[in-house]
Amino acid sequence: MTHSISPPPRTSELVVDRMRSLIADGTWAVGGRIPAEPELVAEFGVGRNTIREAVRALEHAGMLVPRRGDGTYVRSRSALAGMIERCAPPTEARQLFEVRRALEGEAAAAAAERASADVVDGLRELLVAAERAIEADDLDGYGRADIAFHAGLVAASDNPLLIELYGGISEVIARGHPAVLALSLDRREHPRGHRDVVEAIAAHDPHRARAAVQDYLDDAEQVAR
Amino acid sequence: MTHSISPPPRTSELVVDRMRSLIADGTWAVGGRIPAEPELVAEFGVGRNTIREAVRALEHAGMLVPRRGDGTYVRSRSALAGMIERCAPPTEARQLFEVRRALEGEAAAAAAERASADVVDGLRELLVAAERAIEADDLDGYGRADIAFHAGLVAASDNPLLIELYGGISEVIARGHPAVLALSLDRREHPRGHRDVVEAIAAHDPHRARAAVQDYLDDAEQVAR
Repeated sequence: MTHSISPPPRTSELVVDRMRSLIADGTWAVGGRIPAEPELVAEFGVGRNTIREAVRALEHAGMLVPRRGDGTYVRSRSALAGMIERCAPPTEARQLFEVRRALEGEAAAAAAERASADVVDGLRELLVAAERAIEADDLDGYGRADIAFHAGLVAASDNPLLIELYGGISEVIARGHPAVLALSLDRREHPRGHRDVVEAIAAHDPHRARAAVQDYLDDAEQVAR
Repeated sequence: MTHSISPPPRTSELVVDRMRSLIADGTWAVGGRIPAEPELVAEFGVGRNTIREAVRALEHAGMLVPRRGDGTYVRSRSALAGMIERCAPPTEARQLFEVRRALEGEAAAAAAERASADVVDGLRELLVAAERAIEADDLDGYGRADIAFHAGLVAASDNPLLIELYGGISEVIARGHPAVLALSLDRREHPRGHRDVVEAIAAHDPHRARAAVQDYLDDAEQVAR
């Protein structure tokens, strides 16, 4: 028998965890209003004070935001994005890009070390989807495909902490620097580095995978500045 | 005149921010008990409900922890460390080291691009302090000097977001994997990569700086596994 060193979680912690999950999986979408207090009381089966404490905690975490007389809205999907925007000192584009480059480069190197053939095939499919959207001049489709490609690349690292941090940084960049996406759209081409990184992962070459990421992010950063 | 898009912060947000600062600057030390509620009411000059909301918010953030019948203790110095330990999926040593390597490598490269001669001199002094502690067989002193060296290296990036994230990851590693420090102590030498990275920064060589960090962290990770 093992002994727990932590006390059992309080009801409000369980409610906070469930609300976080609803936000993370998109059930409560960013920019949308969450259900009113009485509905939450009914849905979660807990008292009004517990709901209120959980909502306040997520407001302090930067994930929810109250609008006077208009309920509570979802501000950030990721706890880290909320933390950066709520607690960190003002962050410039350069600083965000350095952190993104660090995490995405490491993810690509990790993927090159251990990604299975199936994972590599999945990355190739994401790449082709983005290239086709560019060819078809489908800008909305390209935006979604590009986001899916980068998320898939980092997911291939199989490192949940890295994936979580990257998701937070990406959310802050997407909100503050939407011009980044315009780079590829203006040129009507999917940046070549994207194919390079997938081929480096397929070849199990961490060094080349990291270098490819640094190349295309240096390019994107020039535009964002 | 500019218009703010956010409402003015609520009193409880200001209290949360001040408490975060007291924890970050060590006034409220990790492992220590924070003042009781009546003292906080007097110290912050706000009502009991506001204090209670702020404390609860920092508990949910993983920075404070209540002990039944014994007050509230500081659990994490960094908001990120609290978030990782409270919200992230269980994190293995390998995952922590990958993220640390990503951030420390990028910090070294950024330092090589822009560190002033004064900053480089400061890093050299931190290096010498660590080497002297090893020579003198002063293990406690070495531990402190080594932590100061790595913190100084990342601070030389002049990127507040990177510094914040690195601080959080380091706190989680220090709590979960104290064996890492034992590497240098057992060998009675300060790892050579530490001098390499400082010389690469002095030579404004980002590529070499990043490679030196990856070398000595690969070494440290072998020990921690």
